[in-house]
Amino acid sequence: MIDGTKRVMIENVAPQIACGEYPIKRAVGESVRISADIYADGHDELRAFLLHRKEGDAFFHETPMIPLENDRWTAEFQILEMVPYYYGVKAWVDRFKTWSRDMSGRIRAGQNISAALAEGARLVGEAATRASGADRESLLRSAATLEGTDPEEALSEALSSSLAEIMAKYGDLFPSRYEKELMVLVDPPRALFSTWYEFFPRSAASFGSRPRHGTFRDMEKLLPEIARMGFDVLYFPPIHPIGETHRKGKNNEPRCEAGDVGSPWAIGSESGGHKAVHPELGNLEEFRHLCAEAENLGLEIALDMAFQCSPDHPYVREHPEWFRRRADGSIQYAENPPKKYEDIYPFDFECEAWRELWEELRSVFLFWVEQGVRIFRVDNPHTKPVPFWRWVISEVKQRHPETIFLAEAFTRPKMMYGLAKAGFTQSYTYFTWRNTKKELTNYMTELVEEAPRDYFRPNFWPNTPDILPEFLQFGGRPAFIMRLVLAATLSSNYGIYGPAFELCENEARVGSEEYLNSEKYEIRPRNWNIEGNLKDFIARLNGIRRNNSALQTTWNLRFIKAENDFVIAYVKVSRDTENAVFTVVNLDPYNTQGAWITLPLEELELKEGRPFLIHDLLGDDKFIWHGGRNYVELNPRVLPARIFTLKKDLRKETDFDYFM
Amino acid sequence: MIDGTKRVMIENVAPQIACGEYPIKRAVGESVRISADIYADGHDELRAFLLHRKEGDAFFHETPMIPLENDRWTAEFQILEMVPYYYGVKAWVDRFKTWSRDMSGRIRAGQNISAALAEGARLVGEAATRASGADRESLLRSAATLEGTDPEEALSEALSSSLAEIMAKYGDLFPSRYEKELMVLVDPPRALFSTWYEFFPRSAASFGSRPRHGTFRDMEKLLPEIARMGFDVLYFPPIHPIGETHRKGKNNEPRCEAGDVGSPWAIGSESGGHKAVHPELGNLEEFRHLCAEAENLGLEIALDMAFQCSPDHPYVREHPEWFRRRADGSIQYAENPPKKYEDIYPFDFECEAWRELWEELRSVFLFWVEQGVRIFRVDNPHTKPVPFWRWVISEVKQRHPETIFLAEAFTRPKMMYGLAKAGFTQSYTYFTWRNTKKELTNYMTELVEEAPRDYFRPNFWPNTPDILPEFLQFGGRPAFIMRLVLAATLSSNYGIYGPAFELCENEARVGSEEYLNSEKYEIRPRNWNIEGNLKDFIARLNGIRRNNSALQTTWNLRFIKAENDFVIAYVKVSRDTENAVFTVVNLDPYNTQGAWITLPLEELELKEGRPFLIHDLLGDDKFIWHGGRNYVELNPRVLPARIFTLKKDLRKETDFDYFM
Repeated sequence: MIDGTKRVMIENVAPQIACGEYPIKRAVGESVRISADIYADGHDELRAFLLHRKEGDAFFHETPMIPLENDRWTAEFQILEMVPYYYGVKAWVDRFKTWSRDMSGRIRAGQNISAALAEGARLVGEAATRASGADRESLLRSAATLEGTDPEEALSEALSSSLAEIMAKYGDLFPSRYEKELMVLVDPPRALFSTWYEFFPRSAASFGSRPRHGTFRDMEKLLPEIARMGFDVLYFPPIHPIGETHRKGKNNEPRCEAGDVGSPWAIGSESGGHKAVHPELGNLEEFRHLCAEAENLGLEIALDMAFQCSPDHPYVREHPEWFRRRADGSIQYAENPPKKYEDIYPFDFECEAWRELWEELRSVFLFWVEQGVRIFRVDNPHTKPVPFWRWVISEVKQRHPETIFLAEAFTRPKMMYGLAKAGFTQSYTYFTWRNTKKELTNYMTELVEEAPRDYFRPNFWPNTPDILPEFLQFGGRPAFIMRLVLAATLSSNYGIYGPAFELCENEARVGSEEYLNSEKYEIRPRNWNIEGNLKDFIARLNGIRRNNSALQTTWNLRFIKAENDFVIAYVKVSRDTENAVFTVVNLDPYNTQGAWITLPLEELELKEGRPFLIHDLLGDDKFIWHGGRNYVELNPRVLPARIFTLKKDLRKETDFDYFM
Repeated sequence: MIDGTKRVMIENVAPQIACGEYPIKRAVGESVRISADIYADGHDELRAFLLHRKEGDAFFHETPMIPLENDRWTAEFQILEMVPYYYGVKAWVDRFKTWSRDMSGRIRAGQNISAALAEGARLVGEAATRASGADRESLLRSAATLEGTDPEEALSEALSSSLAEIMAKYGDLFPSRYEKELMVLVDPPRALFSTWYEFFPRSAASFGSRPRHGTFRDMEKLLPEIARMGFDVLYFPPIHPIGETHRKGKNNEPRCEAGDVGSPWAIGSESGGHKAVHPELGNLEEFRHLCAEAENLGLEIALDMAFQCSPDHPYVREHPEWFRRRADGSIQYAENPPKKYEDIYPFDFECEAWRELWEELRSVFLFWVEQGVRIFRVDNPHTKPVPFWRWVISEVKQRHPETIFLAEAFTRPKMMYGLAKAGFTQSYTYFTWRNTKKELTNYMTELVEEAPRDYFRPNFWPNTPDILPEFLQFGGRPAFIMRLVLAATLSSNYGIYGPAFELCENEARVGSEEYLNSEKYEIRPRNWNIEGNLKDFIARLNGIRRNNSALQTTWNLRFIKAENDFVIAYVKVSRDTENAVFTVVNLDPYNTQGAWITLPLEELELKEGRPFLIHDLLGDDKFIWHGGRNYVELNPRVLPARIFTLKKDLRKETDFDYFM
């Protein structure tokens, strides 16, 4: 039989994912705002507390919740350490608070309050029996005053705030607890704010000399320039030995020619598999040295984990039971009939030895963690079972909570969200194909305001080695700038595949989104300093991200009115409101577009009619505006976007006289 | 360790209430449509089944689910018996279906299919080992044909639908099951479709003679007229002995005069409490006789359960521990400071003896069930703990699943919905105060399309003894007709407090929604046959409800466009589409209003430009319309509403020539 005295209902506690089946996610430094429906029978006053504790805490911290409309209550807590946090809610009927409220009603109505004072004395006296020390003494004195002979003194005591304060501590006679303890998976700050640069290390040999296979040592020479551009994650496609059987030729030709280097995703050869390094890149020691050099420059190396094998992978010989066999006894290569991928053997996750397979794949992650890698970009996770990812990510993060897993799942929405729920730290998105104002607004609204917000951290990529979208193919250099600014200001995590991006490479294989002469199948050293390259622009953009905390989260995005469908505008304000950034982007790479923009003055602590300074950090132009509605014009050949800051000290009224 | 071979994800199964904490509700005869997100890694074909069983079934019935958009699948099942039902979902990767799909791809691409045929033979052969009898023989023959020497025969076998059909039965190698088993609380049909008449039996004595206290025998004489009006539930305010201490006088005067009968909600006197009958009404035997007489006329008696006591209630003497005491030792009367209700002692649900109190109150319900009562209107449930209701309703319904509990909670939305979740079969609503088109549309949309749909069954009351709303006070007879038609056609459950309603009584105590000379405090025999009474109109309206199955559910409501804010229009179509009703109501009781109405022709199986007959069942007028957009004008003095039917046989094209 349930406890009949627990009258307070606590329902619909948010956020929670799939009834608490999955944890919500936060990065260190973020907060968790909880809300809940809390109500009870009758007209009594309630008190509600958000409970939270971090792993290892013996007790819950209690934060008073505040009632909003319609019996919804809210409170928040901060994530300070990189350990799991847990949260819940408790609430109770507060007899003393109810008594106080009723006392005021009685006094206003001019009723005799002696019986009520006696009742109050009883409540206070009972609380005293549950208190100790000074509180107890104080409560006993209050009770005596309430039933004392001096009615004025009694009344004053009844309404005193100090009595209310002490009574609040001893009011939880019959607390209701929300039945579930919900969990927060806490990731490192870089889970929320990261700037990725993808590069094929085999293209690292210096340009001009006869093309040769790049090495980790070559790569080290490029680090300073990548760091100067302001990236903090340097991500390599697979660095393992590449298979020779059915190796693909240039431009994905089914047959390769002598000297063709093959696709890094056809993993495994006589030289080893997922725990080995391609001999032409170098060795493990050189890789660790590269990681250390990168770290000195503020760059973290991310590795691609592609769980599939070339026919030459040692696993094929040592663990044939992990692969599916065809009727003729041969191992089943990858196919999506009628397409065949004979250079790739997928693992059979339905095989009887799936436990051993899972454990081996976990050991691959742990191996690279030992080499110093903390960030993994996972290739095609949507072709392996979700329960596997849930298990393996949890296993790795339990040992190394600082690890980050980026899901490269360009697939159906439910699967993309499912992988994020299962534990991926960041996710590729549909941003790559969202170009119009309506598309961008709808998609961002889904990501920022709807359920995915608590578990799906977008990482925006304008291009990847697999995708040169049409907008970049045909929009010229302005299109590259537009997409770059959008990625870098809409999402706090973004990345580019370079140097194809900063060199504005836009030649695709006809009728496809594939790069012509794709680096996936050949070595492509380049001249990084050609006319029109975006390196300095990228450096400035990433500098703006680094210096403006408002851009270091995705969750504060708010679209604002721009009276032109080719112009998109949005505001981000930092949590402490010190930093406010608003971005305006021309979405038309061919024509100058202008729009009246409406700023949310109140939110920015500005007043209509008072002048304020806005500073475009991209063009380094300053303007004085006088109200919420202003005109912005963007010429794509000059600068198709502006990123304005409103410095808080410049927003103070007293400072504006200077500009008047 | 979880099972790695279960690759199919089943998420977001709907409907479910608070993560399955509460059952969803259905009446016998309704269906349950389930939907779920179902997806797996890779590109394999999936198969999904809705599982359902009723209490006592050893096995689940399996209904194939159909994929909708975006990996959402759906299926439904029927509720046929008044026992709890349970539902879930299972799904698996269908290797044979995947193989068949791929086979078609290979054939289209002109590939060699011999290896694929061999793979198919293996799949079919494996399935044969899991089959028996004729299926097994058939599968073995198919496998032999697939790997036989005749390629044409093999191909034909591969694509045969009979093979696909048998293989579908043996494909669930690694089924995923949704982790929860969700429950349906099944109520009697009257839970969904009921027509209530509230009446004070003490006013049942015939009019004209000197007013005297009515009796159950008097009441019997009124039954035929109430039945003739088309009601099927006759609900009495409390019929128990009424307290004398602090008895209220007429018009809620704090002091009564000699002969005042008091409020029936001040329950309990020397004559007994909640299990006794007011001696002036009669005795238990007479009550049972009345119930039987009512039943003969298709009327079911509903009793009011008001869990509170007059100071004279035997409980006060026998169980003082169930009440709260004031500081001076006296029992605490009800109050909402500064208001006092000294004639009422509320139970203290936080008392130490709460278990005994709960059990006693359960015994009150069971007592009346034994007398033949199956329907309970519960007074002010929101002033007693929700967990109590959840327990007591479940306890009664386990023994008597045919019982119905109507919650009279006019309180905050979360509590109203909370009581419904906790088990109340029907609920009072805010309909009483929703008058404008926008108010009605918003409220109905919340009830019919949002979460409450699966647990909150509205019962619409245009008036109650406690509420004579302003719209009725000032809108005259047309207002009574409008509100009646709205209640009876928007909601399949509705009721009126009579004869105040059908006599269009609209005199309130000044500045309040209380009736003047309220029957709550005095006996009010009336002349039921005064000029302008609505008895015949009500009889016709309730007859329309009885004859049109489209009006016997609330969940099929669909608003349609009416180009005037004072005119509301909506369509209801029965599940079998045989019956379609559309209602148009003028919401302005003072002026004639007209509107262009747009009918959803396609849904009604009509065609633009083809004439069709519509029949207004209220005015018995017939019209021929030729398209979706038509003009309707409603004079409140004549008939402020129309209820049109479109008979399905009249909607058939061939029948229209008659009208052309």
